Amino acid sequence: MSNSSTIVVKLGGTEGVDFSAICADAAELIKGGQRLVLVHGGSAEANSLGEALGTPPKFITSPSGYTSRYTDRTTLEVFLMAVNGKVNSLLTEQLHRLGLNAFGLCGMDGSLLVAERKEAIQSVENGKRRMIRDDYTGKIDHVNTELLEMMLSAGYLPVIAPVAVSHNGEALNVDADRAAAMVAGALKAETLILLTAVPGLMEKFPDESTLIKHISQDKILAALEMAQGRMKKKVLGSEEALQAGVGKVIIADGRGDKPISSALAGAGTVIG
Amino acid sequence: MSNSSTIVVKLGGTEGVDFSAICADAAELIKGGQRLVLVHGGSAEANSLGEALGTPPKFITSPSGYTSRYTDRTTLEVFLMAVNGKVNSLLTEQLHRLGLNAFGLCGMDGSLLVAERKEAIQSVENGKRRMIRDDYTGKIDHVNTELLEMMLSAGYLPVIAPVAVSHNGEALNVDADRAAAMVAGALKAETLILLTAVPGLMEKFPDESTLIKHISQDKILAALEMAQGRMKKKVLGSEEALQAGVGKVIIADGRGDKPISSALAGAGTVIG
Repeated sequence: MSNSSTIVVKLGGTEGVDFSAICADAAELIKGGQRLVLVHGGSAEANSLGEALGTPPKFITSPSGYTSRYTDRTTLEVFLMAVNGKVNSLLTEQLHRLGLNAFGLCGMDGSLLVAERKEAIQSVENGKRRMIRDDYTGKIDHVNTELLEMMLSAGYLPVIAPVAVSHNGEALNVDADRAAAMVAGALKAETLILLTAVPGLMEKFPDESTLIKHISQDKILAALEMAQGRMKKKVLGSEEALQAGVGKVIIADGRGDKPISSALAGAGTVIG
Repeated sequence: MSNSSTIVVKLGGTEGVDFSAICADAAELIKGGQRLVLVHGGSAEANSLGEALGTPPKFITSPSGYTSRYTDRTTLEVFLMAVNGKVNSLLTEQLHRLGLNAFGLCGMDGSLLVAERKEAIQSVENGKRRMIRDDYTGKIDHVNTELLEMMLSAGYLPVIAPVAVSHNGEALNVDADRAAAMVAGALKAETLILLTAVPGLMEKFPDESTLIKHISQDKILAALEMAQGRMKKKVLGSEEALQAGVGKVIIADGRGDKPISSALAGAGTVIG
């Protein structure tokens, strides 16, 4: 079952993104009848918990220039504590305090997000390539749409943590932007909003005056070239979402007041 | 809707309880058609995470002799990380690895467990009474039975963490034995099994040869007097479960092989 009026919002895990403002804005929209699904990150919390527990984060850069967290078994447990236990639980609490019937879950729950585990990944360090085999990350290849539809029909607000289950039942760290894209695609959402700590995609990062207002679907590859660091995954996620039938994607600022409403009113970079 | 063939199993959070054996046993029972709901604790994990983060656990003893965790805001966040993020997530993963479609959630999710926050609690320290007002604990007064039934009908295995939501939307630490009792009561479960690190209720704790095989409902108050420490809450939970319509309660050993099947076959203390 598709529903064209669903909005999926991804809340960045980076510092600066204002979760309270996003929650307050979400509450107003939901009370006005809007169907909403939230997907969050948690990288900042996972990093600081790892530091506090003596296991600081490590990162991998792929040959094509994407950066991701190196998630060995110890890091996976820290990630689960930070992302499922802290970010997801506190976000769910905050939404309940605003009178919403929030439902925190991760992709393992009811096999919401099933992913292919990356059995061996290439990492580039100081120009040299290395194979990594104990990484618990993956790429989502299936979303349990029926579960999401059941939750939305029952009046729950899904709040999704970026953890998936592998085909062998393992917990996997997955990229939150691309998880949000997969969820939006599964629901054939009208809009996917990726909130982050910058105003959108910039032609010359970090010069905010070079913000790109609109990227048509045929210009996404060029935008992918232009994007720096983690912005690459947002552009990649945008393309995946559009291909899955999402109406449009907005990469917008999550730092100000009413960030969801502002994005819907035209702020940020609209893709599609 | 009631279902007389549901079994609710509570897995103790204390050291010694063998989660793998419980999961393997659960998998066999579920594959044989048994409807099962799991509720877990997490006190040992919460304690060790608190120690690692420099906020060791504190406990409160009530004037009537019950011991519970003192949960200020910092401890609540540690508790959420340990219980929702580690114990619940790893248990859910372990069950997925056994081929079960486990669904980890806590009582905030979809308002599964709603509790009255204890605004002010009395603590006895060195014989003196003290009032504590910043405690995030509560007593469950409502279970979202419809949500549980929906999950069970859809083929999910609910795995419930002992966190509830207050009437004001706050996250609360709740006693896992009594949470399991409330869940069993809401589902009118045939059997509630409380697995712990002892063989059952003993007349003369810790002498295991004094294990009580059966306690009828009219002898529960006497058993409550006999129970030591945390066993008191199990007996209290048993009474609450029976009053809510649960067929029988079994307090049994969670340390050996096939602990659920053993309890069903007559091990432990049967109440009711």
